[in-house]
Amino acid sequence: MTYQPPVKDLMFCIEHLSHWGKVSSLDAYSECDLSDIGAALTGYAQFCAEQIAPLSQDGDRAGTSFDKGRVTMPEGHAQAYAQFVEMGWQALTHPVAYGGVGLPRVAGAAATEMLNSADMSFGLCPLLTDGAIEALLLTGSDAQKSLYLEPLISGRWSGTMNLTEPQAGSDLGLVATKAIRRTDGSYAVRGTKIFITYGAHDLTENIIHLVLARTHGAPAGPKGLSLFIVPQTLVKSDGTLGAANAVKCVSIEHKLGVRASPTAVLEYEDATGFLIGNENCGLEYMFIMMNAARFTVGVQGVATSERAYQRALAYAQGRVQSRPVNGQTKDAVPIIEHPDVRRMLMRMRSLTEGGRAMAAATAGLLDIAHYRTDRVTNALAEFMVPLVKGFCTERAVEVASLGVQIHGGMGFIEETGAAQHYRDARILPIYEGTTAIQANDLLGRKVMRDGGAAARLFAAGIATTEAELAKGDASAQAIGAGLAQARAAFETSLEWMLDNKPKDIDAAFAGSVPFLMLTGTLAAGWMLGKGALAAQAALDAGQDAPFMVRKIETALFYAQNILPECATEQARILHGSRSLLDATFPE
Amino acid sequence: MTYQPPVKDLMFCIEHLSHWGKVSSLDAYSECDLSDIGAALTGYAQFCAEQIAPLSQDGDRAGTSFDKGRVTMPEGHAQAYAQFVEMGWQALTHPVAYGGVGLPRVAGAAATEMLNSADMSFGLCPLLTDGAIEALLLTGSDAQKSLYLEPLISGRWSGTMNLTEPQAGSDLGLVATKAIRRTDGSYAVRGTKIFITYGAHDLTENIIHLVLARTHGAPAGPKGLSLFIVPQTLVKSDGTLGAANAVKCVSIEHKLGVRASPTAVLEYEDATGFLIGNENCGLEYMFIMMNAARFTVGVQGVATSERAYQRALAYAQGRVQSRPVNGQTKDAVPIIEHPDVRRMLMRMRSLTEGGRAMAAATAGLLDIAHYRTDRVTNALAEFMVPLVKGFCTERAVEVASLGVQIHGGMGFIEETGAAQHYRDARILPIYEGTTAIQANDLLGRKVMRDGGAAARLFAAGIATTEAELAKGDASAQAIGAGLAQARAAFETSLEWMLDNKPKDIDAAFAGSVPFLMLTGTLAAGWMLGKGALAAQAALDAGQDAPFMVRKIETALFYAQNILPECATEQARILHGSRSLLDATFPE
Repeated sequence: MTYQPPVKDLMFCIEHLSHWGKVSSLDAYSECDLSDIGAALTGYAQFCAEQIAPLSQDGDRAGTSFDKGRVTMPEGHAQAYAQFVEMGWQALTHPVAYGGVGLPRVAGAAATEMLNSADMSFGLCPLLTDGAIEALLLTGSDAQKSLYLEPLISGRWSGTMNLTEPQAGSDLGLVATKAIRRTDGSYAVRGTKIFITYGAHDLTENIIHLVLARTHGAPAGPKGLSLFIVPQTLVKSDGTLGAANAVKCVSIEHKLGVRASPTAVLEYEDATGFLIGNENCGLEYMFIMMNAARFTVGVQGVATSERAYQRALAYAQGRVQSRPVNGQTKDAVPIIEHPDVRRMLMRMRSLTEGGRAMAAATAGLLDIAHYRTDRVTNALAEFMVPLVKGFCTERAVEVASLGVQIHGGMGFIEETGAAQHYRDARILPIYEGTTAIQANDLLGRKVMRDGGAAARLFAAGIATTEAELAKGDASAQAIGAGLAQARAAFETSLEWMLDNKPKDIDAAFAGSVPFLMLTGTLAAGWMLGKGALAAQAALDAGQDAPFMVRKIETALFYAQNILPECATEQARILHGSRSLLDATFPE
Repeated sequence: MTYQPPVKDLMFCIEHLSHWGKVSSLDAYSECDLSDIGAALTGYAQFCAEQIAPLSQDGDRAGTSFDKGRVTMPEGHAQAYAQFVEMGWQALTHPVAYGGVGLPRVAGAAATEMLNSADMSFGLCPLLTDGAIEALLLTGSDAQKSLYLEPLISGRWSGTMNLTEPQAGSDLGLVATKAIRRTDGSYAVRGTKIFITYGAHDLTENIIHLVLARTHGAPAGPKGLSLFIVPQTLVKSDGTLGAANAVKCVSIEHKLGVRASPTAVLEYEDATGFLIGNENCGLEYMFIMMNAARFTVGVQGVATSERAYQRALAYAQGRVQSRPVNGQTKDAVPIIEHPDVRRMLMRMRSLTEGGRAMAAATAGLLDIAHYRTDRVTNALAEFMVPLVKGFCTERAVEVASLGVQIHGGMGFIEETGAAQHYRDARILPIYEGTTAIQANDLLGRKVMRDGGAAARLFAAGIATTEAELAKGDASAQAIGAGLAQARAAFETSLEWMLDNKPKDIDAAFAGSVPFLMLTGTLAAGWMLGKGALAAQAALDAGQDAPFMVRKIETALFYAQNILPECATEQARILHGSRSLLDATFPE
């Protein structure tokens, strides 16, 4: 089973769903055309398929190891990472001014998907480095930028995000790590951080930790947090490496999945840190970074789904078992001929392609919002981020589970590989904010604050797509009808939330995850519907019939088999909350 | 985290949902009353909680090991198994004539749940032994019964089922293992069997393999299979052990879950086997056993759900994080106070209790059907078995996944224990017939063959419960209304199946799993509704208010948050099939 990067579908999504016309008209991307992106993605696809994907199963089996403060990566990872650096892949979406390639996020999202399909454990290292780069770009001083950005963008150094402490998980207001200002302007950072992805490893010569900590006299709670750069090895003013810093890895976790990525407990013992931006603004900066990181974790969900789907499809096409239910032949057939196996495969495929389409659309909105102060685009981008994170990661768990099921007993055997996706996927709805946190963000910040304005714009966009689908053939009309029903469920739920949240906030939040899943399910269906329109246009123009036919099939399956879930979520939102809020539990 | 056996709820289900009046009026159980069952379950609960549950995490970590044909169980398992034998727990539901205790299956199902909650890996050994005992009771000769039953029922020997071969999984017609008759009437069995649970281990002095094989000249396909007893160590006519048989374990599997249970590849090299019953009837016998085994795997689903729920509840009550969304306090609260955590807990609880209630009802039907030739009871029991297997195991995967989610980042760390349930649960919808196989059984054999008669009886029973609920208070009425809506979805889907299966068999089977999930979801809701009526009666009589209140809460939550899923399944069944049957896939 080799990974086959879905470059064609990634490019289809960029061309038709990412608002490419607007993205490419931005000054920053005026010299970038689709063929440049296609060439970059094709090159990256080859790297991911040939260099990274083969590491994935062995890396999972071996895991990372820890001995006396040192973390050793599985065999082959150091060489692969060195190649990643040599080929300059970390630089893909970063500014040309600091050595980057300067491609838009729409290309970056596609690249991230491929790397994480190849191996999610490997993909986490560049993902965290991207986060550190973005934080420095947004909030670092010129001196900090010139010292740290180039080695990070080249991939020679990696980055980490240090938020969580044992008592401070979802609630960062409880962070207790201290940062005491020294006379030279640096800070002595002291405390324990847990769940630090790639917090310690042997792939790079330095690791730049970004650490949330509390300065002397800072307010309690979330408004007293500041953000610090704490290099694992201190960096001299000429950029060369100096002394070791007082940060040590005291253990790594024994995890369900992503076992080839080290998750460290880091002990800061008066480590030297450098304030980023202003004191007490740390959480605000973190949230800017987190928005990007959350989007990227959603893309990891699509990535895991894609790999699980490819594996299940290959198995279903090759495994011969049982005669068909319709009795057309007395011989056993490949199991893809059995209706329920097809049902599971189409569910996997449509959820994966729907997630990819949503991610492409959101990446485009983020690209535009980054360069234009366009309130509407910005609001829609903000609205979509918790959907991409929440929906694509919850669905990744489901898709990976279906992948195991399609393999039957073989799915439960680790050597088959399907089980790894089921284990890896399980972290996705948890890290970078659980699904409930995404749902609170969606409902509290993205829906209620503007009185539902962005949500209504979203619905209006769907109605426009429905109207176009209504002019099409029977398939297009069926897709449009499915969207219309699901949109009605969304609008009813939205109005209920707008009416009821002010009166009964607990009841509203009891329905927040159902509301996120309803909205995410609808958003993916919308994008598949738009994709079906584009595919029909391509078909009418005589382009790539088998691929375009499949795009329409996927959208139709989704409309008839998945969009009906929106009505169930509506029932939960409108009628389900009291029974859970009033329930009692034994002590 | 210690396991707390839910004896009270198990007894509630037996008393109110298992048709106890009819079961206890059977001659076989006329001397058994509820207090006897309560005493037996209380004793077994203590054994499971104190002797077995503490082994579970260590056993999972250590796994089983294999060296030169020998399998070694994790530390502590041999002692615990010896205690299990000494206390006579294997005998609980088996006939007094062969040394059993003679309790009905309603008690056996409750006992099985507790053992598998304590440790599913451990629970698999007695489960397979039960299967071998049942096969011998039903189809063995008197000589075979007298030779094998007593040591199996005592637990001194264990049993296995040998069906699967590399090319023969769901399709047993492809079994290639040969059995050549010798002049002494025994058979030489030759072939390779895979996925043999407890096929080799060091817990008992002998293992009795039941093996499907094909005699010389037997017809091809499923109708040419015979069933053989192949003892690991041959048994002399006086019951003492003789020579080793030519069966060898060539490897064990490296599995996602149930890692403390060995899954063996067995090589039969002209091993001595003894025909059970008649030649070419092996699959028929296997199906009798399999019905019981499928029911029991459904109970394993409830067991895993219960343990995952207990663990999540304890965590949610202890973990303090974030202030409440309603702002009632500025302090962080136990996360069970957060609406979405409650939603997940109530989902876990209601799916678990719904599954338990279904299992109790089905166990009672099986008890009655075993002793009475009552066509209606038998048809309902047969109708329920694929629901218990299919629904309770699919839901177990979901419940275990929610259990991980409630733990947040800690859920992904293996030491926490939540991840083990997520791994263990994943085999349940696969072994003893995948969910699709259960759905085919439900639709093909249990619904279509009698023209929907049993299915309509099932619906009529629900309507009766709705009518009783309609006479109750607001909660009861809401539960009844939820059931009525879900029943309507079932009836519409049933009539669609009855109309359309003869015309378009592929379309019918494309909806078979949705139909199973619809029916299972409704069945569990029905049993929770009946339970709510019984709980209200108990409340009115002043009995055990906190427990009875929770039973009603659970039923109400389920009616308002889970029964609405039935409408989605209906949409899939009626409108979803063509889009999946017509879909194309790249080669």
